[in-house]
Amino acid sequence: MDEIKLGMVGLGTVGSGVLAMVQKHAAKISAVTGRQLVVKTVVVKNPQKHQQVADLVHLTTELDDLLNDSEIKIVIEVMGGIHPAKEIIEQMLRAHKHVVSANKDLIATAGQELIALAKQNHCDLMYEASVAGGIPILRTIADSFAADQITEVKGIVNGTTNYILTQMSQSNRSYEDALKQAQKLGFAEADPTNDVQGRDAGYKMAILSRFAFGTNVAVDQFKVTGIDQVDQVDVQQAAAFGYTLKLVGIARLVDQRVFVEVAPALVNIHHPLAQVNNENNAVMVTGRAVGDTLFYGPGAGGLPTANSVLSDITTVTKNMILKTNGNSFNGYSHPLPFADATMVKDCYYLSLTLPDQPGEMQKLTTVMAELNASFSQIVQKASDQGEARVMIITHQMSKAQLNQLELALQDLGTIQLHCAYRVIN
Amino acid sequence: MDEIKLGMVGLGTVGSGVLAMVQKHAAKISAVTGRQLVVKTVVVKNPQKHQQVADLVHLTTELDDLLNDSEIKIVIEVMGGIHPAKEIIEQMLRAHKHVVSANKDLIATAGQELIALAKQNHCDLMYEASVAGGIPILRTIADSFAADQITEVKGIVNGTTNYILTQMSQSNRSYEDALKQAQKLGFAEADPTNDVQGRDAGYKMAILSRFAFGTNVAVDQFKVTGIDQVDQVDVQQAAAFGYTLKLVGIARLVDQRVFVEVAPALVNIHHPLAQVNNENNAVMVTGRAVGDTLFYGPGAGGLPTANSVLSDITTVTKNMILKTNGNSFNGYSHPLPFADATMVKDCYYLSLTLPDQPGEMQKLTTVMAELNASFSQIVQKASDQGEARVMIITHQMSKAQLNQLELALQDLGTIQLHCAYRVIN
Repeated sequence: MDEIKLGMVGLGTVGSGVLAMVQKHAAKISAVTGRQLVVKTVVVKNPQKHQQVADLVHLTTELDDLLNDSEIKIVIEVMGGIHPAKEIIEQMLRAHKHVVSANKDLIATAGQELIALAKQNHCDLMYEASVAGGIPILRTIADSFAADQITEVKGIVNGTTNYILTQMSQSNRSYEDALKQAQKLGFAEADPTNDVQGRDAGYKMAILSRFAFGTNVAVDQFKVTGIDQVDQVDVQQAAAFGYTLKLVGIARLVDQRVFVEVAPALVNIHHPLAQVNNENNAVMVTGRAVGDTLFYGPGAGGLPTANSVLSDITTVTKNMILKTNGNSFNGYSHPLPFADATMVKDCYYLSLTLPDQPGEMQKLTTVMAELNASFSQIVQKASDQGEARVMIITHQMSKAQLNQLELALQDLGTIQLHCAYRVIN
Repeated sequence: MDEIKLGMVGLGTVGSGVLAMVQKHAAKISAVTGRQLVVKTVVVKNPQKHQQVADLVHLTTELDDLLNDSEIKIVIEVMGGIHPAKEIIEQMLRAHKHVVSANKDLIATAGQELIALAKQNHCDLMYEASVAGGIPILRTIADSFAADQITEVKGIVNGTTNYILTQMSQSNRSYEDALKQAQKLGFAEADPTNDVQGRDAGYKMAILSRFAFGTNVAVDQFKVTGIDQVDQVDVQQAAAFGYTLKLVGIARLVDQRVFVEVAPALVNIHHPLAQVNNENNAVMVTGRAVGDTLFYGPGAGGLPTANSVLSDITTVTKNMILKTNGNSFNGYSHPLPFADATMVKDCYYLSLTLPDQPGEMQKLTTVMAELNASFSQIVQKASDQGEARVMIITHQMSKAQLNQLELALQDLGTIQLHCAYRVIN
C-alpha cells in the first residue's frame, strides 16, 4: 500500500496523541483512505525529552529536515502560539506542503493571510482541532450547513472555564477554590489568564463566525468578558431562578449584520447547553431551515484533539488521491458589517447592591422605566451592612439600552451594578 | 453563473422543503458552490395537487421526463418506500444521474446493491437525510471519525416514539393517550406500526452500523423491540430509580464483533441522551480516541430533512466541479461477524409480578444466584390482588444470562417477567 509521509512540529499532548492514533488505528485509516500514514519526522526543541519515541520517528531540532524532505507531503503544526508558528506554516506552504494545524490563536489572528497563502500554493490548510477539541464542528458547518442560512452559533467552547463554573455551581466552591481544583486536575494551566478572561473562547468564536457567516471577525473587534469576576452569589441566584451560569460565546446574524460576544450567561436548565458540564464543550448551531442542532464532546485532551487533527489529515489524503488540494477548508465568504448595539436584543440578569433605605428601589425602577426596560423576575436578598442585594431578570432589551442603564446607574452613585449577564431561554 | 439542474421524484413534506430551500437560500448556495441550483422537473402522481408550484417547476407524471433530460444531472428521491423507489433509483443511476435519497427503508434494505450500481456508473449516491432527519450524522461519521475506531453508536433515532415516551414520562399519560396526542400533533402517522414497533429505528441503526463499523447489517439480523408494550408503571419506576425511559438503538463493537439492537432502555438522567425530549433525535458516537460525542437536532420535519438533502446536493455539486463523483458516501468497509450473546454485557431493569406469599422472592433470588447474576437496586410495590410488583436493577450480566433468566422464570411458572430493559449509565 502507498505511504503518505507526515512531518510534525511540536510533540506535546496533542502531538503525542497524533503519533499514538496513526499507529493504533493504522488498519482503519488504511481501510478508509487506501493509504498508510507514517509520521516520519518530528521537530522538537529538545529531542532528549522525547526518547521514548526515538525509534519510531526521526526527532530533530531542524525545520529544514521537514522543508527539504520532498517525501513529506503533509505537516502537522501542534506547537501552539502565534510566533514562530505563523512563520513556520508560511515556510511549509511555500514549500508546497499541506498543513494541518490545531492552533486557534494563530488561525483566529492570521487565518485570512495563511488561507490566501495556501491557495496561492495549491495547498490544503485545515484546522478542525482549533475549535472545541474533539467536536467535529468546523467541517460539519462547512459541509452539512452549506445550503442553510445559519442564524446563530452559540457555544461552550472553553473547557477550563466550564469546569470552574460547574464546580462553583454543583459544589458551591468559590471562583478561587474552583480554579485551584481545576489546576490540580490539569483542566487549567498554571497561568490561566487566556482561559478565564475569555480570550481563548474569543479566538474560537472568531473562527466559528467565519464558518457560520462567511465573514472575517477579529477577536479585538468584539467584547470578551471572562469568568474571573463571577461571584458565587450570582451562581446561586441563577440556580434559584432556574438557570445555570456558563461562559457562552455567541455569534448571531441580526438583519444581515453580525454580532459576536463572549460573556458569562444564564442558561435555562432545560436548554441543552445547560447540561454541558465540567471540561466538556458544546456548540449549538441554529439554521433557518434545520432549527436547533447541538454538537457535544470533549473540548480538549490529547486524543480527542488528535482525532480532529487526523480527520484533517485523512481529508488532505483523500484530496491528494483525487488531486483536489488547494480548496479552502471553509468555502463560504460573505463579508458583513457589525450589528449596532440597538439591534442586539436579549433578556439580562442584573445583580445590584443598593443602600437599604427608602427610595433606592424607586430610583432603580425609575431609571429602568425611563429606558423603557422592564423586568420579569426580581429578588431582594436580606440586607447586609446596610446594603441590599437585588437580582433582576429583565424582559428583552437592546445592548444600547443596557449600556444606557449602566451609565444611568453610575450617575446615580448609590446603586452598584455588579454584573449584567445575558439570559438564554 | 453556471446552473446545475435537478430533478425530483416525490413532492411531500421533504420535497416541498427542498424546493423552498433551493429558492430561499439561493445566494448562500451559490456563494458556497459557485453554481446556481435549479429544480427543473418534479415527478408526482397527481400534478393537480401541486398547482401552487406549477409555475416554478415542470410537474409531470412521467419518469422519462427526468431520464431523457440530459440537462438534469442530479435526481432527488423523496417518495419513500422500497418499491418502486428502488427501481426508479436504479434507472436514474443507469442513466448516469447522481442520486440523493432520503429513503431509510430502501437504503437499509437494498443499500449495498444500489451503492455498487452507483459506483459502476461513476455516479454519487448520497442519503444523509435517511438517518435522524436534520442531524448531519452520516457525513460526520464518514469524514470526522475516519481515523478513529468507533466502539459504540447509540441513539434516539425515532421522533415519534421519543415524543410518546416523553409524554408518558412528563405528563404521566398512558401509552395509548400519548400515541393519540402524537397523532393529533402530526408526530405519529395514522398507522404508527413501523415507528412504535421499532422498525424505523432499526433501519437507521442498520445504516449507522455500516458507517460506524464498515459492516453490513440487515434489519432482520438483529432484535428490534418497540414501545407498544411499555407500561406507565415502569416509566414511573424508572424515574424513581433516577432514569428516563427511551427507545435506544445500540450498535456496539465487542471483541471485533458487532452487536446491534433497538429496544426501550433506562437512561440515567445525567446522561446526555436523557435530555433529548419530544420529537428530537440524538446520536452518541463513542470513539476510542475521541471518547463520547453527541449530535442532537430535529429528527424529522420538512425543512430540517431538506437541509440534509441539500447538504448531499451541495456535496455532489462540489464533486461535479472537481470531477470526483463516483466515490462511496461511506468509504469504510470492514465486514464483522455478530457478537455472541455471552459477549454482550449490560445492566438490566427487570419488572416482575410474583404471588405475594412467602418463598416467592426467595425463588427469584435463587434463580438469579444460580445464574451468577446480582442486583444493585430492588423495589417491591404495594401488593395488588394478591400479587406484588418487583422492580430490579441488576449488575452487569450478559445477554445469554438474561435469556437463561427469562427461561428459568418461565419454568417456575409463578413469577411473570414483564420487561427487561437495558440500563445506560
